Amino acid sequence: MTISSEPIIVKGGSGWAGPMPKGSVLRITDVAGQQVGDLVLFREDDVTERFSQANTRKMENTIYLAEGSRLWSTRCSVLAEIERDTVNRHDILSSACSPYDYPIRFGIADHRSCLANLCAALKPYGIPEELIPDPVNVFMRQELSTDGTLSVEPPRSRAGDHVDIRFAIDCIAGISACPQDQNACNGWQITDLRLDLAPPA
Amino acid sequence: MTISSEPIIVKGGSGWAGPMPKGSVLRITDVAGQQVGDLVLFREDDVTERFSQANTRKMENTIYLAEGSRLWSTRCSVLAEIERDTVNRHDILSSACSPYDYPIRFGIADHRSCLANLCAALKPYGIPEELIPDPVNVFMRQELSTDGTLSVEPPRSRAGDHVDIRFAIDCIAGISACPQDQNACNGWQITDLRLDLAPPA
Repeated sequence: MTISSEPIIVKGGSGWAGPMPKGSVLRITDVAGQQVGDLVLFREDDVTERFSQANTRKMENTIYLAEGSRLWSTRCSVLAEIERDTVNRHDILSSACSPYDYPIRFGIADHRSCLANLCAALKPYGIPEELIPDPVNVFMRQELSTDGTLSVEPPRSRAGDHVDIRFAIDCIAGISACPQDQNACNGWQITDLRLDLAPPA
Repeated sequence: MTISSEPIIVKGGSGWAGPMPKGSVLRITDVAGQQVGDLVLFREDDVTERFSQANTRKMENTIYLAEGSRLWSTRCSVLAEIERDTVNRHDILSSACSPYDYPIRFGIADHRSCLANLCAALKPYGIPEELIPDPVNVFMRQELSTDGTLSVEPPRSRAGDHVDIRFAIDCIAGISACPQDQNACNGWQITDLRLDLAPPA
């Protein structure tokens, strides 16, 4: 596995995927602020094992992720850990926005979506749509009422805020700079994410 | 598709699966009280489309299910609806208990699990483990602290309580009478679920 030593700009509304070896660190920087990234992880030697929102909620015993949170797989392996985090508020309740939900939620037939971005970026790695899990919604903020109702609010991230994710095993990672402009998810403005990939120490 | 006209007893700690045609109703009865059932649904004509906790949270805008809630798929189709419900509190945050989590959470190597039950029951329908989604945890109750921490509490269901689930399209359904006896999930006692299957009117 080799990883890019140059920063990668994931343009607002687009996606990226690549290998992340054990011990490597993925820094995700919110370039302009209030931009969500939908992140999915797959075990490199068996992509049927992949990130699991529900196992992560169970094993971390929380619905919010922050510095120190581990990202668990469908088979309860630790795939990665949030090693450093200047925001400390990430969502593991929402699905990726998708070609299926924009028509129903917003009456828009051909909107760009995180799921389509992830599908396209992960295709070279032989990962089909039905294996793409619900993501870590990096920087996304939902507020929950006491009756269980959800409300999508603008992220707390400001320009330059970032998370460092250290990989515990060899993974394929995919990320989408969320194109959602129909609610407050990205502060009503779609902007870029920057990725810095550091090899194992 | 034909369905059983006889009641089906799902023994505590075991699983069942079968076809549920469009318009049919699955009644799940908690025979002795405080017993959780992990329910998963698959589109019969393409089992890669299946129940989605995250899309259900998004489309129903809640983390709790009750009478009137619809069960959404990975492609944002309505698979089924909770037509009648004497409990009105079901979980869509937890993963199924699994052969992977008992060793880590409780130090037990060979505990029965919902995921293994569902795998075995769904195998005749050609559904592999990696397609089994996080379930509707029927009757399961988790309480959430304001900091996002989760706590597994005994279900509110009492003997005879039930939910009626009407199918919107032809599905394969699988259910496990949860064998979890290491926390309060099933009120510390594993008991049976009863299924009554009603054909389309």
